[in-house]
Amino acid sequence: MCEANAYLIKKEEPELIMEAVDVIEPEEDGLKLVSIFGEQKFIKGHIHSLSLIDHKIYLQETPDD
Amino acid sequence: MCEANAYLIKKEEPELIMEAVDVIEPEEDGLKLVSIFGEQKFIKGHIHSLSLIDHKIYLQETPDD
Repeated sequence: MCEANAYLIKKEEPELIMEAVDVIEPEEDGLKLVSIFGEQKFIKGHIHSLSLIDHKIYLQETPDD
Repeated sequence: MCEANAYLIKKEEPELIMEAVDVIEPEEDGLKLVSIFGEQKFIKGHIHSLSLIDHKIYLQETPDD
């Protein structure tokens, strides 16, 4: 299977926020993540980078105003 | 293998711009795409959405000023 894990970029270590991500789509001012299990999560941010062979998606949060 | 194909969102059909993408990283005002074969491409734009089980990455170009 070709899903990947989503990490949120933090000052220190990237934080794992969802495993087995299939779909990421823009929604309002952020992103909707959907796993292969149908689990959904909303993140106010954007996709920073990908490393698919490593099964990694890096997301960056939009700072609050 | 868990690479995906990168498509550029156009008014009509999404256009395939690179197959077998492994890594996408931000670079200057755009993105650097790297395939599993080491091929590189630069796109002035951002990652719009992902559908990894379908092996699809959608990119959106930044409009020229």
